[in-house]
Formats: sequence, C-alpha cells, structure tokens
Amino acid sequence: MVTSAGRSTENAPGADASAEKPTRVGRVGLWLIGARGSVATTAATGLAAISGGFAPATGCVTDQRVFDAVPLPEFSELVIGGHDISDVSLAKRAEYLVGAGMLPLHLMEAVRGDLDEADARVRPGYHPESGGSSQAAVARRLARDIEDFTREHRLDRVVVMDVSSTEAPVAPRPEFDDPELLLAALEDPAQATLPPSSLGAYAAILAGAPYVCFTPSPALTIPALRELARQRGIPTAGQDGKTGQTWLRSVIAPGLAARGLRVLSWAGANLLGGGDGATLSDPDAVSGKLLSKNRGLESLASGAATPLHIDNVPDLGETKVAWDHINVEGFLGSRLTLQTTWSAFDSMLAAPMILDLARLMALADAAGASGPIGELGFFFKDPWGSDEFAFAEQSQQLAAWAHATGERVTAAGAQDRVATW
Amino acid sequence: MVTSAGRSTENAPGADASAEKPTRVGRVGLWLIGARGSVATTAATGLAAISGGFAPATGCVTDQRVFDAVPLPEFSELVIGGHDISDVSLAKRAEYLVGAGMLPLHLMEAVRGDLDEADARVRPGYHPESGGSSQAAVARRLARDIEDFTREHRLDRVVVMDVSSTEAPVAPRPEFDDPELLLAALEDPAQATLPPSSLGAYAAILAGAPYVCFTPSPALTIPALRELARQRGIPTAGQDGKTGQTWLRSVIAPGLAARGLRVLSWAGANLLGGGDGATLSDPDAVSGKLLSKNRGLESLASGAATPLHIDNVPDLGETKVAWDHINVEGFLGSRLTLQTTWSAFDSMLAAPMILDLARLMALADAAGASGPIGELGFFFKDPWGSDEFAFAEQSQQLAAWAHATGERVTAAGAQDRVATW
Amino acid sequence: MVTSAGRSTENAPGADASAEKPTRVGRVGLWLIGARGSVATTAATGLAAISGGFAPATGCVTDQRVFDAVPLPEFSELVIGGHDISDVSLAKRAEYLVGAGMLPLHLMEAVRGDLDEADARVRPGYHPESGGSSQAAVARRLARDIEDFTREHRLDRVVVMDVSSTEAPVAPRPEFDDPELLLAALEDPAQATLPPSSLGAYAAILAGAPYVCFTPSPALTIPALRELARQRGIPTAGQDGKTGQTWLRSVIAPGLAARGLRVLSWAGANLLGGGDGATLSDPDAVSGKLLSKNRGLESLASGAATPLHIDNVPDLGETKVAWDHINVEGFLGSRLTLQTTWSAFDSMLAAPMILDLARLMALADAAGASGPIGELGFFFKDPWGSDEFAFAEQSQQLAAWAHATGERVTAAGAQDRVATW
Amino acid sequence: MVTSAGRSTENAPGADASAEKPTRVGRVGLWLIGARGSVATTAATGLAAISGGFAPATGCVTDQRVFDAVPLPEFSELVIGGHDISDVSLAKRAEYLVGAGMLPLHLMEAVRGDLDEADARVRPGYHPESGGSSQAAVARRLARDIEDFTREHRLDRVVVMDVSSTEAPVAPRPEFDDPELLLAALEDPAQATLPPSSLGAYAAILAGAPYVCFTPSPALTIPALRELARQRGIPTAGQDGKTGQTWLRSVIAPGLAARGLRVLSWAGANLLGGGDGATLSDPDAVSGKLLSKNRGLESLASGAATPLHIDNVPDLGETKVAWDHINVEGFLGSRLTLQTTWSAFDSMLAAPMILDLARLMALADAAGASGPIGELGFFFKDPWGSDEFAFAEQSQQLAAWAHATGERVTAAGAQDRVATW
Ligand SMILES: NC(=O)c1ccc[n+]([C@@H]2O[C@H](COP(=O)([O-])OP(=O)(O)OC[C@H]3O[C@@H](n4cnc5c(N)ncnc54)[C@H](O)[C@@H]3O)[C@@H](O)[C@H]2O)c1
Ligand SMILES: NC(=O)c1ccc[n+]([C@@H]2O[C@H](COP(=O)([O-])OP(=O)(O)OC[C@H]3O[C@@H](n4cnc5c(N)ncnc54)[C@H](O)[C@@H]3O)[C@@H](O)[C@H]2O)c1
Ligand SMILES: NC(=O)c1ccc[n+]([C@@H]2O[C@H](COP(=O)([O-])OP(=O)(O)OC[C@H]3O[C@@H](n4cnc5c(N)ncnc54)[C@H](O)[C@@H]3O)[C@@H](O)[C@H]2O)c1
Ligand SMILES: NC(=O)c1ccc[n+]([C@@H]2O[C@H](COP(=O)([O-])OP(=O)(O)OC[C@H]3O[C@@H](n4cnc5c(N)ncnc54)[C@H](O)[C@@H]3O)[C@@H](O)[C@H]2O)c1
Ligand code: NA
Ligand code: NA
Repeated sequence: MVTSAGRSTENAPGADASAEKPTRVGRVGLWLIGARGSVATTAATGLAAISGGFAPATGCVTDQRVFDAVPLPEFSELVIGGHDISDVSLAKRAEYLVGAGMLPLHLMEAVRGDLDEADARVRPGYHPESGGSSQAAVARRLARDIEDFTREHRLDRVVVMDVSSTEAPVAPRPEFDDPELLLAALEDPAQATLPPSSLGAYAAILAGAPYVCFTPSPALTIPALRELARQRGIPTAGQDGKTGQTWLRSVIAPGLAARGLRVLSWAGANLLGGGDGATLSDPDAVSGKLLSKNRGLESLASGAATPLHIDNVPDLGETKVAWDHINVEGFLGSRLTLQTTWSAFDSMLAAPMILDLARLMALADAAGASGPIGELGFFFKDPWGSDEFAFAEQSQQLAAWAHATGERVTAAGAQDRVATW
Repeated sequence: MVTSAGRSTENAPGADASAEKPTRVGRVGLWLIGARGSVATTAATGLAAISGGFAPATGCVTDQRVFDAVPLPEFSELVIGGHDISDVSLAKRAEYLVGAGMLPLHLMEAVRGDLDEADARVRPGYHPESGGSSQAAVARRLARDIEDFTREHRLDRVVVMDVSSTEAPVAPRPEFDDPELLLAALEDPAQATLPPSSLGAYAAILAGAPYVCFTPSPALTIPALRELARQRGIPTAGQDGKTGQTWLRSVIAPGLAARGLRVLSWAGANLLGGGDGATLSDPDAVSGKLLSKNRGLESLASGAATPLHIDNVPDLGETKVAWDHINVEGFLGSRLTLQTTWSAFDSMLAAPMILDLARLMALADAAGASGPIGELGFFFKDPWGSDEFAFAEQSQQLAAWAHATGERVTAAGAQDRVATW
Repeated sequence: MVTSAGRSTENAPGADASAEKPTRVGRVGLWLIGARGSVATTAATGLAAISGGFAPATGCVTDQRVFDAVPLPEFSELVIGGHDISDVSLAKRAEYLVGAGMLPLHLMEAVRGDLDEADARVRPGYHPESGGSSQAAVARRLARDIEDFTREHRLDRVVVMDVSSTEAPVAPRPEFDDPELLLAALEDPAQATLPPSSLGAYAAILAGAPYVCFTPSPALTIPALRELARQRGIPTAGQDGKTGQTWLRSVIAPGLAARGLRVLSWAGANLLGGGDGATLSDPDAVSGKLLSKNRGLESLASGAATPLHIDNVPDLGETKVAWDHINVEGFLGSRLTLQTTWSAFDSMLAAPMILDLARLMALADAAGASGPIGELGFFFKDPWGSDEFAFAEQSQQLAAWAHATGERVTAAGAQDRVATW
Repeated sequence: MVTSAGRSTENAPGADASAEKPTRVGRVGLWLIGARGSVATTAATGLAAISGGFAPATGCVTDQRVFDAVPLPEFSELVIGGHDISDVSLAKRAEYLVGAGMLPLHLMEAVRGDLDEADARVRPGYHPESGGSSQAAVARRLARDIEDFTREHRLDRVVVMDVSSTEAPVAPRPEFDDPELLLAALEDPAQATLPPSSLGAYAAILAGAPYVCFTPSPALTIPALRELARQRGIPTAGQDGKTGQTWLRSVIAPGLAARGLRVLSWAGANLLGGGDGATLSDPDAVSGKLLSKNRGLESLASGAATPLHIDNVPDLGETKVAWDHINVEGFLGSRLTLQTTWSAFDSMLAAPMILDLARLMALADAAGASGPIGELGFFFKDPWGSDEFAFAEQSQQLAAWAHATGERVTAAGAQDRVATW
C-alpha cells in the first residue's frame, strides 16, 4: 500500500492497510475548475510527488497526527481531472513554475508522467465569450465531463473544486433569487445569465458532486443556485482559500482580543506577481478578493480594518509579499504597534489545502453530509455556514468535525452516494 | 457600588451589586515585591484610575465579557502594598513615567493621592547586601509586614506578587533540595543561602499567602521551597510574565503548526530601555530571562529557536522593540518567511496582567486551591504546572478554570483561608 | 544677540555678532499660506523655542557647521505671519498637537505668548467658495496683507511660503498658457480661474516677494503665472517638501545605482492620520501628491516605481508610517530585497525645513537672485529648476550654492530688493 | 574582441578595441586566497559568464557608464588562480551553490569548463596546523606560486586578493612592530608568528603584487608588514568588503546627518547561514568582523551604534538577513524611527566587487601607484588610507580617482611593473 511519504515510513512494506483504517472512503476524483492554473499545477505536482514517495506532505493539515484516526482517503487514492480554458499543459505550466524558482526541478521531472496523465483528463471549460448554445446546455456538458471522469476512472466519488481565475462580483438580478426564473433564463441561448464560476457550480450540482469554492468569485453565492444545491443535497464548502496574510490575521487578531487589547487600525499592503497578480490588477476582479479578505478581520477586530490594496509587481513572480501595520490600544490608553511581513509562494500555500479539502470533502460525502460545512471554515477567508473567523477555534472545530464524521463513516461502512457500476 | 469604569456604564446607579455577583471573594490585598518599580507603579496608577472611573480596564483579561459570571473581586476591592529597596516614591516614579511619554499626565495627577497612600503601605525589602540578622529573621520580618497589612486594611486575603528586578539563575546547592537543610541554613546569620526573590517567596509561604512570580528570578523554583509551599498549601502561579514578543510567538507558532508547516528557524532581537533594560544588560541577570523566553518556543517549534539577544538601548526609554524572523518549510520543500516587529511600553502590557492575576489568585484562594495553578499559564513565559504554551489553548483553559473555580466559590459561600477579626 | 540655542552656547554674552557674520540679510518675514495648519504651527513653535533658547535647532539643515560661514539671517530675525481660512488659533492648534503627543507641553507653554503674537499677524486667506469680488481683487488684497506686514514689522524682506492644504491638479485651460488671457479672466468676478494655491502665488508675485511652494498643489506650475513671476524677477523654490519616505528613497536609490544594482520594483504603502491624512483621503487631492512623490523615484530607479497608496488611518494622529519594499537585481540575475519602515511625526520633519527655506530664500533675495533656484531641490520631491533627485548630490549643490550666494551678499553689502522706509 | 556582455552589444563584430581604449593595462591575473570559497567561486563563475557573454555585468561598479573613459582591463583579460586549503573543486562548490538556490543552473553548466581551468590553477594554501618548514619558507613558496602563475599565463600583472575564511584578531607582539624582529621570527621553524592571512599578505609583498584584503582578518594590519609593503612599493587596498548591511548604513547615516537629524541609537541583528555563517558562529572570529562592521557607523553616527550580533541560522543557506532599528532625534526633541530589513545572497554582492577591485588595482598598478589607496574605500567596511565612510562621497572619490589614474596610464603608455618575458 502506498501512503503519504512524510508519515508512513514506519510501516513495514506489505502492512495491512485495512487494519489501519477501519473503512474506506474509496477512490476519489478531484475535479479542478482551472486545472491548468498555478494552484492546480502545484497541487497536481505535489499529489504525484507525495503519492510517489518523492516528498513528504508538509503543509497538509490532514497529514497531521491528530487526523490519524480519521478514515480519510489516501493521497494515492486521489485522481485529478478538470476544466480549463487554457491550452498550456500542466507539464508546461510546471516547467514555468520551475523557472520561476517555485517548483524544484527534480520533483517536476520525477512526476512529469503523472502531470501528462492528469492533463489528458482536462476538458475544455466554459469561456464566457464563446457563444452558441444556452448556458443550460453548457452546464449539462460540463456535468457530463464530471460523470464521464467518474465512470472512466471507477471513482467512488468526485469532489469539484473551483481554483480558476477570480471573477468580479455580479450585480443582483431577479433570476438570482428565484430558481425557476434562473433555470428558464439558462435555457435561453441569447442570455449569459451566470458568470463562469456560477455555471461551474451549477454543473457540480447537476452531477451531484460535492463542491468547494477556493476563489472569491460569485460561484455558489447566488441564492437560487444555493437553493438548487440544497435540493440536490450536495455538501459544499467555501469560500476563498485563507492561505497567507488573511490567515495570519485570523491567528493574531483573536490573540489580541483574548488579551483585552483593542485594535484601532489594521492597515496593510499586498504585493503580487504571477497569474493571480495580473488578474487582480483588474480593479473589478480585485473587488471581490478585497471584500472577502477583509471580512474576517472586520469581524475579529470590529471595524478597524483599513481598506486593503493589491499591487501587481510582476518581478516578484510567484512570490507574494504582504505587510500589515496594526495599531492597538492597551492599558490606560497606551499604544502598541505590531508589523508583520509575510513572503511566500502563494500557490505553495494553497496547493496542500486543495489536497486537504479533497480528502475532507470526500469524507463528508461518504458520511452523507449535505449543505455548507461550516467546520471547514479553517480553510476559507469567508467561511460558508460559520461565523467563526478565529483560527485556533477553527482548528478545533475542524478536528472535532473530522473525528465525528469519520466515526459516522466507519459505523455505516463505506457509504457511496455517487454510483456503482 | 464602584465597578470597572470600562464595563459597567450600563448599570443604573444604585443597582444591587449582590444580585450581580452571587458571592464575594472579599477585600483583597496585592502585596508587590518591587512595589516602586515600573510595572508596580503602572499597576498602581491603573488600579486607581480604573477604580476611580478615570480609565477603562483595557488590557485586563478579566474585564472581558467571558468572565462576567465569575465572582472575581472588583477592582475597587483591591488594596496595594509591598516591599521595595528603593526610596523613590510611587508618585515620583509615576512622574518619571509621565516624562518618558508612557503614563498620561492627567491620569497621574488624578490618582496622585492614591499613589501616595499606596506608597505609605510600602515596607523596606530585603537587600542582599544588608548584613546582620539571619535570612530566617528577615523572612519572618517580611511575613509580618504582610500580616500587618492584612490586619490593618481588614483584608480577606493578600496575594503576594514578585515584580522586582530580575535576578541571575543560582547554582545548585544541597540546601536547595532538602527543606530541613535549608531551614537550618537560613537561621545562620553568616550565610545568605537564598537569593532575594526566593526569600520573598519564603515570606509569602510563612504568611500563608497566595504567591505569584512575574519575573524569571529563581524565586520558588528552588525544590526545597516548593516543598515548603506545598506543605503550607498556598496556591502559586508563575513564572515570568508573557507580555510581548514571547506572547506573540505563542500565538503564531501554534498557528503554523496547525497548518502542518515546519518552523526551520526562529531568530530575533530585543531592544530594551528603562530600568529593566539596564538590569538585563547584565549578562548574568539576562541568562534567566533568555532561558524562560525561549522555553515556550522550543516546545512550540521543536528546537528551531535561535538564541535570543537583549540589547540595552537607553534612548528607547520605557519602550521595548522586538524583531522576529521566522523561516518556515512548506509544501514540497518551499520556504516562507515571516517577520514581526513589536513596539510597546513594556510595563503597560504587564500592569493589567498584574491586576488580572491578583483577581484570579484571590478567587483561587477563596476556592481553597493550593499548589501551582497550571491554568494561569496564559500569563507566563514558563508556566508552572503546565506544559501548554499555545496561547489559544491557554485562553480556553483559563476561562474554563475561572468558571469552575468561581462556581466552587459561589457554591461554598465566601471562603476565607486567611483570617477573621 | 540671541542666536540659535543649539549652536552658539559657546558665545560669550555680548559677543559682537557683526564680527561673526560679515554682512546682514536683515529682518525677514515668513508669510505662511496655511499659517494655522500643523506644519505652520510646528514651525512657529519651533522658531520661538529656538530663538528663546528653549530648544536646539536639531533638524535644521542651515544650523549645521557647514553653513557657519554663510551670512544667513538669525532665527531670532525671523517674524512669522500669514494667511489662513481657519479660525482655530495657533495656540489652540499647538495645544491640540500637545495632546496628540507631538509637541512637548513645556515648550508650548514656554512660547504661548509668541504663538499669540504670530496669530495676531494672520489674515483671512482666500476661500474658493467665498464669492463676490474678482480673483484679481482678492489677489490685490492678499498682496496688500503681505506689504502691510512688511511695513508694520520693519522687515527687510518677506518670504511667502505655501504650507496650506493640498489641492487637486487642475485641467489645462487657455488662460493658463497666456498671461494676458489670465489677467483678464482674473478681473471677471463671475469666474474663479485659479485654484487657491495659484492665487496665493500670484499675490506673492504682486508683492514682489520670494515664493516657496512646500505643497504639491498647482500653485506656480501654471505657465502663465511662471511667466509673470519671471517678469517680476522674484526668486522661487518648490515643490512639495521632501520630508519622509520620498527623502529616504532619494538617499537609497542613488546608492543602489552606484553599486551597479538594478531596481526591479519599488512598492510601498503610506499610512497617515492628522489633517493632512484627512485631506489626502480625497482621491482628487491625493493624485497631485502621489505624482510628485513618485517623480523622483521614477527618475532614480528608471520606471520601477509601483503606484503608491496613501491610507487615512486616523488613530495614527500626527504620525506617518511608510513601508517600502524594494526588489533589486544583482550579480548573475540574483535578487536582493530591502524593506524599510519609517515612522515619524510628519510636521516635525517639515517644520525645520520651513525655517531653513526662509533663511535660504532670504539670502537668495538679498543676493538678487530670481527665478527657480534648482539648488534648493534638496528640500523638494519635485524640484523646480533641477533634474537632480539624488540626495547626496543635492546636499553638495545646496552647500555650494549657499556659500557662493553668501559671498555675493557679503561682497555687495546688505542687498535689499523689498523696500526701505 | 570579447567585451562585457552587458555593455558592448552595440559593438560590431571585429570592431577595433584599441580605438576604444587608448592604452592597455594588459592581461591581469587575479590570485584569490580562498579560491575555492563561496565568494571566489561566485566571482569565477561570474567572470566566465560575463566574458562568455552569458550574463551582463550587473553589480559591477566598473561596468557603469561613468567608467567608460577609464582604460580598465576587459573582463576577458582577467585570469583567475589562487590558494586554498580545501580540496573541494570550484565546480563542485558551484554545484553546491546551485543546489542552494544561489547560482543559476544554466550559468554554472555554461561555464563549467572555465571553472575546471581555474581550479587547475589553484595551489595549496598555508594551513596553520601544517608544521615542518619555517613561515618564511612557506611565504617564499606561496610567492613562487604567484610568480609561476604570472609567467605561465603571460600576465602583465597579478592582483592578490584575500577572500579566505575570517580569522580572529591577534594579540600584539614585539615582532609585529619591528620588521627585522619579524623577519627573524619567520625564519624560525619552531614559531608560527603570523596568522595565515598575514602570511598571505607577506607572500604578495615578496611577489611584488598589488594586494587587496576583502576580509576582516589581521592580514596587513600588522605594522611591521605594512612597513615591508611600503618598502616594496606595492599598492594595497582594504579592508573587509562593504557589501550589505554595513553598506546600507553608510548610505543612510550620512543622509540623516545632512538633514541635521541626530542618531540616538542604531541597533540591529544579522542572520547568516553558509560557510561564512559557520565561521562567524565562532565568537573569536566574529570579533574582528563585528569591530570592522561597526567602525564606519561609529564614525558616521557618533557613537550611537549598539553592539552588533551575528547569528548562525543554517537553514538560511547562502542568504543573509539583516535588520536595523534606528532611533533618531529630530526637531524639538521628537523621535523618528527607521527600520530596514535586508535579504540577499551575500556572495552575490561580494563577487562583482572582487572583479571591480581586480580591474581597479590593475589600473593602479599600471599607473605605478603604491601604498594604501584610500579612494577604494568605496568597497570596504574599514577603509585603509581614508577616514571617509559616507558612501556618496566614496562614490565620487572613486570615480575621480579612476579618471585621474586612467589618465596617468594613458599618458605614460602601458606601464608594466611586473615583468617582461
Ligand atoms: N494562495 C493562493 O494561491 C490563493 C488563495 C486564495 C484564493 N486563490 C484563488 O485561486 C485561484 C487560482 O489562482 P492561481 O494563482 O492558480 O491563478 P492562475 O491564473 O494561475 O490560474 C487560473 C486558471 O483558471 C483558468 N480559467 C480561467 N477562467 C476559466 C474558466 N471559465 N473555466 C475554467 N478555467 C478557467 C485559467 O485558464 C488558469 O489556468 C484564483 O482565483 C485565486 O484568487 C489562490
Ligand atoms: N512586560 C514587562 O514589563 C515584564 C514582563 C515580564 C517580566 N517582567 C519582570 O518584571 C520585573 C519588574 O520590571 P520593571 O520594569 O518594573 O523593573 P524596575 O527595575 O522598574 O523595577 C524593579 C523594582 O524592584 C525593586 N527591587 C529590586 N530588588 C528588590 C528586592 N530585593 N526587594 C524588593 N524590591 C526590589 C527595585 O528597587 C525596583 O523598584 C522584572 O524582573 C521584569 O523582568 C516585566
Ligand atoms: N512632512 C510634511 O508634513 C509635509 C511634507 C510635504 C508637504 N506637506 C504639505 O504641507 C501642507 C500642510 O500640511 P499640514 O499637515 O500642515 O496640513 P493641515 O491640514 O494641518 O494645515 C493646512 C492649513 O491650510 C489652511 N488652508 C486651507 N486652504 C487654505 C487657503 N485657501 N488659504 C489659506 N490657508 C488655507 C487650513 O485651514 C489649515 O490650517 C500640505 O499640503 C502637505 O501636503 C507636508
Ligand atoms: N558579502 C560577503 O560575502 C562578504 C563581505 C565581506 C567580507 N567577506 C569575507 O570574505 C571571506 C570569504 O567568505 P566566503 O563566504 O567565501 O567564505 P567561505 O567559507 O565559503 O570560503 C572561505 C575559503 O577560504 C579557504 N581558506 C581558509 N583558510 C585558508 C588559508 N589559510 N589559505 C587559503 N584558503 C583558506 C577555505 O577553504 C574556503 O574555501 C570571509 O572572510 C568573509 O568574511 C564576505
Ligand atoms: Na460566514
Ligand atoms: Na525638476
């Protein structure tokens, strides 16, 4: 049995896996919308490297000892496929990321075959400027891609995850509040009612697949879509991966609060290169991101957050640098200031979370969960189904939920909501 | 009824306090060893300001809503006295702290009378270079000062707290491991067996008073003294207030760990002015501080802590500046770096904790607690009776302990271990 | 003779000043547009404190030993007056700045009388929303205020300096390029052709007074006004005081260039409270500031400057915090990064420059200089009459110019372009 | 003619080099003591890359336009050889530096042949623990290596440069002050009078070669050796390359001074990995470094420098991180603080300076210069023959000196102090 390289070195070869994990969630598909982007490529490279024993699973939350007793799928049981509108293959993108100093050359070379296989499982995504058929027809085609993937790779379930380019917020429309109106509009080839991220979410609903939104895009925030998801009973999780500066804020702010200190202002700057940097230099696209970035801080530090800026600094490449300046009122009106500077490869923070979410959502699905899973708020800037933004509390909720859900799976035997063939 | 200025504004005048707090811990003495130092002066000024309604209790943990149901003594029920070897009065020291830009002038002026009263309750401490009587005789005199204070001010209990100058670690001696040997040595006028902080702790034991060590000094770490404290049944808490950089580390390090990230190195620098800066420029004194500062990080980041430096930078006055550089390994061997810079008036961070500890230790005492209270590890760099260094966990332990202890007090009616007159 | 407290303590009382400085520039008026603002109040407080011997002239460039041989007017020979549209007196504003922790209480109290006297010399400025008379009539009234000030205080010359609120850039108009068209338009009571800063500059031209622009406002950048200034022969200097972050950039960027290192990006953030922070939170007003801030860097680091942001963070009060992140290419394509964080009271940096500029412009005027004085580029973000942005070069140019100009003044005897009575 | 890749792309192939540079300094040997270390390997790789047209000469001061008219030797006219006590070849070391993320793989591969050739020119250095022959005999052997190198490669002159491991300061001895005593002691096989760096300098003297000390080691600081160097008439330059934090200090401190601001304290921290990090974790070795690092700052900021620390942080690899905290007094006693964080590959900063120094010292030699060349203080923490620490002034002195020296060379025709064959 192949297990996470970083953890299972103690296992004798040939050790009985079934003894270790009382029941199986099964083979899990990870269907990435934006499958050829930076985050997706890093996740695919990492999954192959971990499964192949070339790298430990550092940065994967679910590889921590505290999840040992939870019957998660093994890394080697995950299969990646997805949608994208780019023609640059996963291997080409990985080469680029090697050149940018992000991916280690030897790892990329070791898993090039896996990347090619994953790339062969990528299908054309929905391009908003492609006309012709109705959005409903497109969504059915996208859902069929997911179902084909499931069948061809004999998967027990498929988790759909949006890691595509950030989209701008959308203005309210009547169709967004009424499922019937929406479904009718989708059938009209002359209208493009939903933004791409929402159409992708709708395809997941049609395919009955668990859905995760790692971006700040509109996606499943449209009420009529949420209602359709509810009716279909899929488990969902979102929104916008909490990887860097926002994560750090969710660590520090609750600490200050627990000390009885009062945040007066929390200002900062964000420097970004890479594909995401270019996208986010578009003020429209950025507005969604800035909103979701600041939401947690607004909650944790009661309104002290100063509007954030994102600067596109192309020479930073895949690195993201974030500076925060926190002005705090302490005892007798005194001031304390804290500055933080964070510098990291953004996709290297996101990718292990993608793998974590795939494992955890597969578990949720196996346990028959449906609706937004607030306990996965750990992973998100703007958690669905939860008002908890404090990271330590989210960590505990995550662990407790995983154990409880795992016990349900174990008790019931291998659940399988998707299909048998 | 006088209540915390910062919280009770909603109370109608004449509201019945007994309805609010089901039972009373009573009037509490706070006996500060080092009562004329910077931390003590700030705590005394703050206590008077809060009690007098001139300032909210910002920075006091126990003033948070989560402690509302806990029957803590009111700020106005605390009375400050103490030992010091300095002749500079509390008011003079407060004036100096105003000049240093730390204490607000108007507050100092508003509470000058209270400072003079507190100063009148300060008795001469033990100066290691004063010869003459045996250390046992000195300790009995110090204990008598505490008992007199209790009686004169009709206090229900007195919490002894060491906020005096940091002392160097001491070399092991046979007397330190054997209470009988120790007691014999103390009676010998020719020997100065114990460092001052330990003699102060011994005096608290003799007086049967709860004892808190806010410094990194030897104090109650001497095994024979710990045994005497155990026999006498006093509650204790320590050691070395976790106010600034070390606190921040105890917030960030567990967050990184929860993400599955691996700290490779955690290096840093400390710039300090003020009285503490001068003391800590003595390499001997500093060694205790550096050890206790790093202990938590060693535990939280498994050995990645680089030896710390403390620089005496006199022009910083009462401000402390700390820089940390954290190098972390993430997914696929990638690196992320985090830098933090912390700048604050050190005593403004410590003083509210002094008041919190007085309230909480009085509660513990009222509940009949004895021995080290690990759940107060929240306040300390090197917690006695606990191996938990992660701040979020410590916060939860503190709240849970306070509620449970409060319930015991409420159930039993006002406990009083000290005396009735 | 009263001299700068910080330098001349070695002088025996009664020392003959004329022996020390071979000729006198005379009594100099400093007419501040925006005379009740933060910068002006700090300059007035400082001038009185230095003249009165309460404070050394730290931060005044012209108080450095290198200017010893230059026949600059003494601080005690400067008299402050000005225009403002605010009714809050200089003393009230100084009290506010004491409360904000910026001005020391004892200094403010020591010079309160001087502030009241200066405030009595402040006349109503031009408010753009006041209607009625033509702008030409207003300008004549403003010029008359300056002339009255000169006469009443028997001044040898008056330097007019704009330290009023930053104005937005203005759109081009035909009148801006043609003095005759402009003069005609100004006579029309129905039109408000010039922004207030430009009307103030025009009043200085009418009064024949040296003019300094310490703000990024349109002021004298209007070509037709520059032509009128040229015709009148007044010396001018500007624009936008180079006090903090921009100054630091002009120090570091040339250093990197001299090493043959290539700046790839220079990004940053600005946090500002105070009056200027509020003004600059207006995106229109800010645009002028951001342009002039970045101009030097664009020149020094060939286009690598990332657009700047200014955030209004009211709780910072009078403090300004600036963060820069500099990404540099070195040998063999390697990268180096430099971060700087600057934290200072902005007006404390500006005020000594105001006094320096008053002394230096009075010298220029005494030497009969006219037109833009590029050698004063030392003081400005966007220097008029110079393309040199590197600070070290500017320092040398300033010193050389001051010596040469001083020699001209000395050679000619006291020049006096303004008036004799 | 092959010229610097970064500058001469405009030259048509076959362009007449002699037309461009009026006279030639000739073929120059660069004899590195410590030829297989990190700095040396980077310099050798860079030289080959620049000569081969694989990389521009970014970071080389002498490649700047301002040196265009100076008749420096071309990069392609430099030949590297040297001494080392390590057996790890230059190519192996370069591979290691590729693995550490410092050298680009493709460059290393492109110049591997050049590295092997250079490595073949490395001779065994003097190991202090090797016994047997007298130090005089060793020095003669080392000098012979240099002379053989000169002859074999038909070099017009050879510059000897110490880039070996930092040595501890040495205690004074009578021999250090008296050339005759010293020479006598060196002949005694039982004594090891000189530390290795000084023996290396002595060998350069014997070989009559220009000598540069890039390290803080004792080297030529021994008075008797300096006297011998003077007698032999060699040009010298030193000491301790000013590459990173110290350089930045020499840029910022003069800027603050020119503003009339007063540095109160300049504290900081240094984090170092790599070979130099390991060496400098030895407190003895570090003491020389710390002294020379702080010397300039002591001069520039009159005694405000706080003692520096160097921490060995192995996981930083070849990266060096330095933090500075500068507390400054401004107008009316106000404070401003500046923090800087510098992060760079240390050897990438040093290597281009090595090439610059080789070119410039060859020029000096061709011009018949002898003794310490203070105008090269630009490159050093602790400049020999100069009291100027301000970087801008040093830049101007360097350029002026280079032009004047170049003119002397041009006027005289190709000087050749070394030999003809
Ligand atoms: N730390 C992080 O990296 C992080 C954190 C939180 C959120 N995110 C979000 O993750 C997303 C991906 O980031 P990235 O750096 O990989 O960006 P990227 O630009 O490298 O990749 C985005 C990919 O999406 C594809 N795409 C665009 N429109 C599509 C469509 N309609 N259908 C299918 N594919 C489409 C693009 O072709 C591209 O391959 C972004 O929205 C980003 O905001 C990233
Ligand atoms: N944030 C913080 O301020 C903080 C955090 C953790 C620990 N501490 C510790 O708190 C202690 C006090 O700090 P401070 O800034 O007030 O220092 P301080 O120097 O201002 O005050 C120390 C006081 O102790 C008195 N003293 C010295 N020896 C004594 C003795 N034998 N008996 C009685 N009094 C004695 C001194 O006279 C002085 O008044 C230090 O040990 C410090 O390390 C402070
Ligand atoms: N370091 C610095 O402080 C610094 C550096 C460069 C430039 N500046 C510039 O200096 C100026 C003053 O800054 P501040 O902090 O003192 O601002 P402030 O808001 O405190 O003061 C501005 C003053 O100008 C007055 N004013 C406004 N319109 C006027 C008019 N039409 N006529 C006369 N007075 C008028 C206001 O009433 C106010 O008193 C700003 O433009 C700022 O951008 C300051
Ligand atoms: N930015 C910088 O890198 C910088 C700046 C200033 C000074 N320096 C100095 O440059 C020197 C080299 O730094 P590095 O990073 O290359 O160090 P390194 O440890 O990588 O290389 C030093 C080399 O010197 C050799 N060596 C040791 N003793 C010798 C001897 N007696 N004879 C001949 N060779 C000997 C070693 O074998 C090694 O190859 C150090 O002294 C350092 O302090 C470096
Ligand atoms: Na939510
Ligand atoms: Na200009």
